Amino acid sequence: MSNQMFHTSKSFDQDLTETTDLFLEMGALAGQQVAQAMHALIEGDMHLAHQVVEQDSAVNQLEVLIDERILLLVAKRQPAARDLRYVMAVSKGVVDIERIGDEAAKIAHMAQQVAADNSGTYSYHEVQHLSNQVRLMLHSALAAFEHLQVERAFDVMRSDGNVDFEYQSAMRALMTYVMEDPRQVSHVINLMWILRALERIGDHARNIAELVIYISSGTDVRHSDFETVQQAIDASKIG
Amino acid sequence: MSNQMFHTSKSFDQDLTETTDLFLEMGALAGQQVAQAMHALIEGDMHLAHQVVEQDSAVNQLEVLIDERILLLVAKRQPAARDLRYVMAVSKGVVDIERIGDEAAKIAHMAQQVAADNSGTYSYHEVQHLSNQVRLMLHSALAAFEHLQVERAFDVMRSDGNVDFEYQSAMRALMTYVMEDPRQVSHVINLMWILRALERIGDHARNIAELVIYISSGTDVRHSDFETVQQAIDASKIG
Repeated sequence: MSNQMFHTSKSFDQDLTETTDLFLEMGALAGQQVAQAMHALIEGDMHLAHQVVEQDSAVNQLEVLIDERILLLVAKRQPAARDLRYVMAVSKGVVDIERIGDEAAKIAHMAQQVAADNSGTYSYHEVQHLSNQVRLMLHSALAAFEHLQVERAFDVMRSDGNVDFEYQSAMRALMTYVMEDPRQVSHVINLMWILRALERIGDHARNIAELVIYISSGTDVRHSDFETVQQAIDASKIG
Repeated sequence: MSNQMFHTSKSFDQDLTETTDLFLEMGALAGQQVAQAMHALIEGDMHLAHQVVEQDSAVNQLEVLIDERILLLVAKRQPAARDLRYVMAVSKGVVDIERIGDEAAKIAHMAQQVAADNSGTYSYHEVQHLSNQVRLMLHSALAAFEHLQVERAFDVMRSDGNVDFEYQSAMRALMTYVMEDPRQVSHVINLMWILRALERIGDHARNIAELVIYISSGTDVRHSDFETVQQAIDASKIG
């Protein structure tokens, strides 16, 4: 762990490092699930889609394991101040990552429906574009968490606005398309669910980024405007 | 608080009671938001819909406040065993309630779109039916949390299966409807988003119910089958 938390107890650091490693492993696994679900969709790879749905339980098991570790860590070590914020943040973060795994499984499930349906002619251009954006967000959010980089976390928060904009515009494009060719309704609705899942993954990545700022600054920025976030970051640098 | 936790420190009980009261208040507020959003939809009450969207920030503020309280409580009181599980559960639970508030705001937003669109002829029968079910689930989950009633919590978990079934069947009905009358596509998609929001609210109520069983039994039943849940409940009665 490179986030420069030093403690007198070697063992506490070890506990924290192990928990962080599990958290990052869980995040990487969920990210991989999203990538594979998208690959399954675009290539029509039903074997891979099935695999993504099956592997969701691995993400879920990590959630349970990490929360167990956190409970033990808090009970045994009684962390305070930033350490306590850190473990509480991990406890929140696993919920977001578990949901990302769920959304990946939903996309994989939709990939199966899209392949079975086989009637669609609408391209995956917008879906793939949005997918690339949210996967980058998740990757940055996890890296920001690993190294406790507040500026990088703030970038993730800001990029969620772009994702929402792209999402809205892709939804409008799909709506126009289905109005012109109502026979595509079933295909279009499947694509809409996928867009929604991607947009949700972006939200969860943003939540993880907010936790990074919370750990470092002590300010809960979950429902704050960007000006307040900037102030919290600035104050944490002085403090 | 009537969940029979006794402590030597009067002040700890007081802290816990205050936190629980805030949690229940937040849950009740989110439940009210869902009810009002549905009312706005069915009655076409745009003023109420606007109000629901506005009031989402009150739910969000309670989330921040409760998490602040929990951090102080853990740092100051260093709770152990069931007390620690309890506060960690509240910390998880506020995330679910905040999301319920978000879903209510989404429904209210859709209510505005539906009213502006004004082209739909499809009835709200299924939507209202599902809404009644998930509102009951939320109500039961919060009551189970207040009184730490594991059997009641288990009932909530089981009823989520019915909600998912009703959701799937309502989605199919809407799909058939739009196939027959493609001019309704815009209206139908709005109704689909509302159904999805309601189904998500059911999931969050189930999550809260799972926390009740976790507090009482010490077993994390989030990704468990019902047999395992029953065993955890039985064991907690003996233990």
